[in-house]
Parts: sequence; C-alpha cells; structure tokens
Amino acid sequence: MTVKVLLREDEIPRKWYNLAADLPSPMQPPLGPDGKPITPDALAPVFPMNLIEQEVSQERWIDIPEEILEILYRWRPSPLRRARYLEKALGTPARIYYKDEGVSPPGSHKPNTAVAQAWYNKQFGIEKITTETGAGQWGSALSFACALLGLKCKVYMVRISFDQKPFRKLMMNVWGAECVASPSPLTQAGRDILAKDPDTPGSLGIAISEAIEEAVGDESGKTRYSLGSVLNHVMLHQTIIGLEAKKQLEKIGENKVDIIIGCAGGGSNFAGISFPFVADKINGAEIEIIPVEPASCPTMTRAPFTYDHGDVARMTPLLPMHTLGHEFVSPPIHAGGLRYHGMSPLVSQAIVEGLLTPRSVNQLQCYESAMLWTRTEGYIPAPETSHAIAAVIDEAKKAREEGKEKVILFNWSGHGLMDLTGYEAFLEGRLADYPLPEDELQRSLVSIRGLPKAAKNKTGRW
Amino acid sequence: MTVKVLLREDEIPRKWYNLAADLPSPMQPPLGPDGKPITPDALAPVFPMNLIEQEVSQERWIDIPEEILEILYRWRPSPLRRARYLEKALGTPARIYYKDEGVSPPGSHKPNTAVAQAWYNKQFGIEKITTETGAGQWGSALSFACALLGLKCKVYMVRISFDQKPFRKLMMNVWGAECVASPSPLTQAGRDILAKDPDTPGSLGIAISEAIEEAVGDESGKTRYSLGSVLNHVMLHQTIIGLEAKKQLEKIGENKVDIIIGCAGGGSNFAGISFPFVADKINGAEIEIIPVEPASCPTMTRAPFTYDHGDVARMTPLLPMHTLGHEFVSPPIHAGGLRYHGMSPLVSQAIVEGLLTPRSVNQLQCYESAMLWTRTEGYIPAPETSHAIAAVIDEAKKAREEGKEKVILFNWSGHGLMDLTGYEAFLEGRLADYPLPEDELQRSLVSIRGLPKAAKNKTGRW
Repeated sequence: MTVKVLLREDEIPRKWYNLAADLPSPMQPPLGPDGKPITPDALAPVFPMNLIEQEVSQERWIDIPEEILEILYRWRPSPLRRARYLEKALGTPARIYYKDEGVSPPGSHKPNTAVAQAWYNKQFGIEKITTETGAGQWGSALSFACALLGLKCKVYMVRISFDQKPFRKLMMNVWGAECVASPSPLTQAGRDILAKDPDTPGSLGIAISEAIEEAVGDESGKTRYSLGSVLNHVMLHQTIIGLEAKKQLEKIGENKVDIIIGCAGGGSNFAGISFPFVADKINGAEIEIIPVEPASCPTMTRAPFTYDHGDVARMTPLLPMHTLGHEFVSPPIHAGGLRYHGMSPLVSQAIVEGLLTPRSVNQLQCYESAMLWTRTEGYIPAPETSHAIAAVIDEAKKAREEGKEKVILFNWSGHGLMDLTGYEAFLEGRLADYPLPEDELQRSLVSIRGLPKAAKNKTGRW
Repeated sequence: MTVKVLLREDEIPRKWYNLAADLPSPMQPPLGPDGKPITPDALAPVFPMNLIEQEVSQERWIDIPEEILEILYRWRPSPLRRARYLEKALGTPARIYYKDEGVSPPGSHKPNTAVAQAWYNKQFGIEKITTETGAGQWGSALSFACALLGLKCKVYMVRISFDQKPFRKLMMNVWGAECVASPSPLTQAGRDILAKDPDTPGSLGIAISEAIEEAVGDESGKTRYSLGSVLNHVMLHQTIIGLEAKKQLEKIGENKVDIIIGCAGGGSNFAGISFPFVADKINGAEIEIIPVEPASCPTMTRAPFTYDHGDVARMTPLLPMHTLGHEFVSPPIHAGGLRYHGMSPLVSQAIVEGLLTPRSVNQLQCYESAMLWTRTEGYIPAPETSHAIAAVIDEAKKAREEGKEKVILFNWSGHGLMDLTGYEAFLEGRLADYPLPEDELQRSLVSIRGLPKAAKNKTGRW
C-alpha cells in the first residue's frame, strides 16, 4: 500500500515556472500614486533589483540557483502523499493526493519563497530584511531563511497576534530574528497610530507600513523589505510545489489529474500547487482548478477585479486584483493567513480568464473537515489548510455519488501545531460562521471608489 | 549533494529486533512485592496478554503485523538525514547521520510503540487505554494511536505540565482523548494526595498510580494501562528506527558506523536507534554506543544497577535497572522526558555488560548545541533531543582534532515546536545547570535500601 511518493534530491525541479508568460491576456502593470505604471527603479528602495526583475519577467522558465536548492534540500522535494485513510473513511472512488508542505522547519510552504528572497537579497549585498507578519507563519519562515543565510531579520507582528501567539514569536527568536509588536514606537507610522490609539490591536496594513518605513529609511542602503505572498515573484518561487507534484504523479502513472485544490489568502500556496497545471489547462487539458477562501473573506467569489492598494495605509503601488477594498476588516476567523482583502494579481487574472473556479467555505465546515482528517490521516492541519480539505472532502463525496474515479490533488500548506487554540474553541463549541453580509461588503468597497479600473480582457470579462 | 536517504514503503522492516535474545547474560525477572519473580498472570489486569508475552519473549525477531505497518506508513520509513550543514559549520571530517523521528504526526518517536500497543490492546478486545504523561509527548502519541484505531484514551497529565503546556493537552483533545490533571479527584490515589496537599504540582509517580487504578478498577475488563518507555516490549517496538537506519546506510554504501548516540530518559528512543547495532557489537563490531542523559538526572553514569520500583508509590513490580531511587526528584530542567529516576532494564543490562558508554551533559551545553543546530540544519529540536546533539557535536569536534573520517549516527527523537518556552528562557539568560550534588544523590538512594539486589553477571560487574 503506497501512501507516499518520494523524489530523490537530484530529481528536484531546477527551474521555476512563470505563469505570466502563458496567460491569454498580458498582465496589467502596477500603478503609482499618479495612476501611471511604476518603473522598476521606483521600487528599488523597497526590493533588491534582482527580485524586481523577476517580478516583471515574462520568461516562462527561470533557473533556480544551485545555492537555493542546497538550502531547500533540507525538506525538498517534499512528499506527495496519498490520503488513503481519508478515502477509505469516505468510501470514495476518488484518489486523493496531497503535497505535504508541513515538513519544512517552520511548518509551511512559506520558506520556499523566504529562502529565495533572502538569497537574492544577500546576492545584492543586502544585510537586513524587514517584513510584517499576521499569524506568524511568514515571519517565522523569513526568520528561518535569514538565519541560514546570515542575514538580520526584523519582523513587525500585528499586536493582537503578538500577544495571542507567543510561540510564533519564540520561533522567530530561536532563528535569531527580532520580532516586535506592531504598531511600535520604532517608526513614524507606528508612533502616529499609537498617539491616536495606544491600545490598538494593530493590523497587517500598519505592520506593512512600519516594515517598509524601516527598510526605506536605512541610510546605509543595506536594508530591504520582503513580502510573503501576493507578488509575482512570490508565486514564481512557490511553483516548485506543483512541479514536484507533477513528477511524483508521473512516477506512479497518474498521468491525468481531474481536480486541483488549494486554499488562498494572498494566493501563494495555491499558485504553487496549481500554476504548472494551469499551463496545461491553457493548452487544452480538462482540469478543474479550485482556489478556496473563507466565506467571511470572499475576495475571489464576491469581490470585483480592479486596481487597489495592498495595504490600509496605501503605501503600496496599485495592483490589478480581486479585492474587498483595502479598508476591509475580516471577521475573527482562525485562519489568519486567509484574512487578506486582496488576491495575487496572477491568481486574480487567471480567475477572470476563466481558468479557475473559486469557492468559499465557512469556518465550521473547515474545522469539521480538519477533525475528520486528524482521525484518519493523523496529521493536524493548519486552519488555512483546512479550507482546502473541506473542498477536497466535498469533491470526494461528489465522486462517490457520481461513481467516478477522479484524481484529486491538493496542497497541504502547513501543520496546525502552533494553532491549537482554534481547535480548542471548536471542540468547546465556541466557534461560529461569519459569512460576509452584502451591506458590509458594499461598505468596504467604498475604499476603491476613485481608484483606476482594470482594463477589460479580450473576452470582455473584466 | 545528498542530505536525505529515503526508503520506499516496501523496504520497511517487517520484524522487530529483541535484544534480550542476544545479551551475554540472561535478563533478570521483574519481582513482586514478595521479592519473588512475578508471573505473566499477575500482570494481566494491567496489560493485555499479547503484550505481556512480548515483554517476556526471548525470540530474536518478532513479526510486525501488517495492520500496524499500514498505520506506520503515514510517516515511516522515516528519513535518514545527513547533517551536512552542521558538519560544514564544525569543519569536521565526520559524516553525521540522523534518523528524523520528528516527522510523525505527534512529532516524536513515541507513536512507534503507541500504535503497536493500541493495536495489540484492540486485538485483545480492549476498548479503553489509560496512561500517564509528564511533558505530554507520550500522552499525545497514545491519543493519536487510539484515535486511528477507534479506542478510548484517558491521560493523567502531571498537573504542573498540564498547567504549563496547554497545547499538549489540546493535541490530545484533537485526537479525541480525555486529558485530566493529576492528581485528580477521579481516583482513590488522586483523592488521597489532594486531601493531604490540594496544591501539589503532581508527579509522574502519582499519575502512574491513577492510570493503573482506573485500568485495574474497570469491572468490565475492557480497560488496560499503557507505558511509553522502560519496558521490554516498548524497546522492541522502537527497534524499527535502527533497523531502518541500517538499511538506509547500506543503501548509500556506509557499511561501517563508528559512533551511535541517543538521548535516554526511560531509554526507548535510544534503544530504538541502537539495539540493532548493539547486536553487531556483541558479534564483534567495533562501535561506540553512547546513551546521553542530563547531568542533573545521572541514572546511567552515577547510579547503581539494582532492583527498584518504577514509580514513587511503589505500585509497579521491582525492575532490575540503573536507578537514582524511586523517591528521586529531578531539578527543573526543560527536558521533561529525561527526568525519570530509572532506566529501561534492557538498556541498563547492556550498560553493565560493557556494551554502552553512557555520558551526561549539562542543560546549557544542550541549548547551545540546539541553537547551533537551528542555525545550520534549520529544524528546532526537542530539549531531550538536544542532549544527543550536544554529544554529537563533541564527537564531531573530536574527529576534527584527530583528523578522522568517523561516521556518527544519532536519533533525532523529536521536534521542539511545543517546547519553545525553554528556548525563550535560554535566550533570556534565565537557564542554569543543575549537576546533581553527591549528597543529594545519596539521600535519594536511601529509598532503595532493603530492596532486593540484582545478581552479578558472569563478569562480576553487577
């Protein structure tokens, strides 16, 4: 009985796949505050130029530097597992496979890009990286990457998570990073907010502002900022997941995947598993590709595709994406990584091109699905990952009803060992669903009024 | 650059190795309260008979039931990793390999025996298993195993850990187990202690008493007790670790291991990695085999080999082992799994036979070693595991000084993601060493006065 498909290190993919090269319509550029496309130079104080080049690249394949692979070998190629125990419990004829990204040292897919970004920064002569983190997955991944590469790392962690998740901060400290609660008195942005509201719980938007301010303000020029999702180069670095999965499925003779599923907050783990298959779909393959989001944060299923800022304080360029409006405040669901108002421009454009079929699920269904998973497969999934599992279970049941031997692949984006308080609340009956009311959605969308609109594509779909 | 050696599922070992069959002198039997060898029947209210048979077996090889393997496939065969990044940092010519037992769902080697024990209990018609847990590794492993097999599980967790480590309790709850703080009002043993001292922090000894009392007291006969270390059948189940490691080393042409290292509290992860190699040593192989313990709990390095009880309340049979005396109270080191007063009889006897060379290390050296590990290999080790790492680093440095290409194998018994508060204390300079003063050792040994002595072996060494 095979439940794991493994690759040798010498079978690891040696190039990343860039979906921008294959999308039917060209990507629309990020815009500056004047509404005009921003130049790479304008981003130079924030990101190193080698990453900016990747951000705007139209090359289909981009070499993965050998030195990055030698870091990734600690946990890559990651196992492709077959969820035979879940299949049996469901009595489904579907064959369910999943990439286990929980095997990385910080426990999620995030280090795939953290390592790449830290390495490119180091190549460019950068000595310190700043970033923000919400629940802490990204902050710990970047801390890990910087520890291995000998870079300094400073993480602005949203205060409410900083207080509620002390273990995530400790992980960052173990890897040598400095982690401060945001808003902090260390930046002008932080001080301004604290002056107005000393007891603010903070937000990702504020933390982004602080991290960018510190990076841009370092007069030595040796500090840059790093983002863990949304941007094109982040999606690029994650495609190693799907490229490995393809090789692994081929290895066991599974040459046709019917359904691909991943949860999506900013879009990076979903892009990682799915983009190599989106390429196949563009070339005619019949395959359903499903990004899954919380019903309480329905960016892909209910929000428009248009230009918006990546942060509340509007410090970032305008990006063409599905967005709930940059002033959107998510209900308090436990999947902290899925509470973002926007969506990766690449994922967003794939949606409007008709290549993806987004879906939303409610919190309770996610935890119920996660519980079934822990009692069958055994591993405890992150609350984000449970969104993918909920959709997988729905599809597996559908295959049972239809009597079809479908092949389902999904991304197990990370383990939930640092997120057990959500399970506690679920087991004690303290969790609720928070589907977003239409009037709240409309109120949040007010913040994008007056911003530039995205152009329509060839099919007139946006 | 190879850093992982993987086995396919069909290469998994299909038999456990029983060291009792090969030790130069026969094992001395457990004794009852009357000082006479106890019969298997006397243990029947506590353990199912199929496990009692394994406990007293002299068979060298014992088949692993296929159904157990099908559960273990979730994470086994576990990866054998080469610590190339640590080797490089140390500039050592040694080649350092480690079995990664952190990949199991609960994150340690413990489920290797938890699954086996739960399965044998189920075969025997048992419906519920009780146990005790200190830091929580064992309790969560048994909860996991019972969840997969549909058994009820009740864990008595030492109160101080119950309060300090709420996440471990939550893990058990996620897997459906009931976890109560010990002493509890649910048993006579617990009520007696609470009447005397309502604010007691509890102890492993009390928790064992409560778990046994509940198992023995179930009039339906459908409840048994389970122990996560010390006993022969537990060592047996863990040998799959070393047997896999042997195959993996052969696969890459490493046919000669020079040094084997594992941390040892009750002895099970050390036995798991080392016993198959102890067999080679008995047959003449030159190999140094090093169990590592805390200097604050020097069971193997400073305590006598004699008969003692496994618990403070003297409810268990007398076992022939290295022991600090059953009234020993360990200083508050963070490696909760290494604070036990006794040692597995099989490991103990291998020591007196001259097959092992035990070593002790202080807490600060362990954390310093763990920090070097996290900055090179990346993964965060459990505080127990850091004891093995400290010895590995010492041996790798020695190999550098001697200019010798030694092959070192050790057991990475588990990750430290649930144990980050110890790292916090270390980083904040709040940790100390607690080498055991000689007078405290002597005071603790008073508790074994008057108990039967172990017989001397052929060489007169005990």
